[in-house]
Amino acid sequence: MKVYIEPIGRLINEFSKLPGVGAKTAQRFAYKVVNMSESEATAFADAIINVKKNVHYCKICGNFSEGEICDICRLRSSDTICVVKEPKDVIAIEKLNEYNGVYHVLHGTISPLDGIGPNDINVKELLHRIAQGGVNEVIMATNPDVDGEATAMYISNLLKPLGIKVTRLAHGIPIGTDLEYADEVSLARAFIDRKTI
Amino acid sequence: MKVYIEPIGRLINEFSKLPGVGAKTAQRFAYKVVNMSESEATAFADAIINVKKNVHYCKICGNFSEGEICDICRLRSSDTICVVKEPKDVIAIEKLNEYNGVYHVLHGTISPLDGIGPNDINVKELLHRIAQGGVNEVIMATNPDVDGEATAMYISNLLKPLGIKVTRLAHGIPIGTDLEYADEVSLARAFIDRKTI
Repeated sequence: MKVYIEPIGRLINEFSKLPGVGAKTAQRFAYKVVNMSESEATAFADAIINVKKNVHYCKICGNFSEGEICDICRLRSSDTICVVKEPKDVIAIEKLNEYNGVYHVLHGTISPLDGIGPNDINVKELLHRIAQGGVNEVIMATNPDVDGEATAMYISNLLKPLGIKVTRLAHGIPIGTDLEYADEVSLARAFIDRKTI
Repeated sequence: MKVYIEPIGRLINEFSKLPGVGAKTAQRFAYKVVNMSESEATAFADAIINVKKNVHYCKICGNFSEGEICDICRLRSSDTICVVKEPKDVIAIEKLNEYNGVYHVLHGTISPLDGIGPNDINVKELLHRIAQGGVNEVIMATNPDVDGEATAMYISNLLKPLGIKVTRLAHGIPIGTDLEYADEVSLARAFIDRKTI
């Protein structure tokens, strides 16, 4: 005899497709939905369908957008492009309220081991944007891991001959940590990149 | 400037209504949905709607059911009723494959502090079932907490005068624990309820 009745089993199965959600958590989510009112459940289901229908990628920068061009590309004019791996990196940077330039979302990083080359990510589109002129600086804000560094190096090698200033986010020990607990690689980087004060 | 575009913000908001889901997790879930195929997202939304439409409560035992009467009540005939707090307790017991009787789901426990009295949970329905005859034993399987114990005592006081055998799940130290780490209350209970071997 099956343990769950079919509609609940099906919903548990759908919830377990979400990242980091196991059988037990999916079950809790499903029971929550069972206990929702009809209108709450409809709103939830609608939001899922709506996201698929109304979220597109910006034709210029590749970020999520409701229209053809995202709000950032539409409202900001800047000679600085910040290159990131994924749309969620744009959000992390936007939350700082520090950066006022535009973005370019690569949708991945070069990763030879996974068979992802420069043609599989939005590098061509970046070169195309730069060829149209008006770009002064490109900030490489890919993650500080092997693939992110390789991608930053690759793109910077392409752009330098064009006379574009290419910068990379600073690495070092995070603010607020104890030196004792900082990881060795970051600490070593902090020494190499030390500044006169 | 808002950080998320509207459809994504709305979906994040819906996901954060799920138990134990904060802003960061809701964002991860929403991105997962954005990256789903159209048919996957539709299946997900359908499963939510479907659960609200097709999950009812069994007219006899109060457990989740697709039809008027749940499979357990329909397929099993038993003189033993196991009384639990919530439908998920039925699933926990069914997974054991130990118990072959029927259930009664109270949908709550008596909790004077929260203003929940015997009339707010399915006690009357249980008495009604028993009044129809054929019941020999009632197993009180409410949680071993204050409310669960109080509910078990309350119901057992109602049933004993009717000549029904009322039992309670055994308490004690869990299998596999070290005595040293067992909580004091369970250990004390294990002493009081000790058995000759």
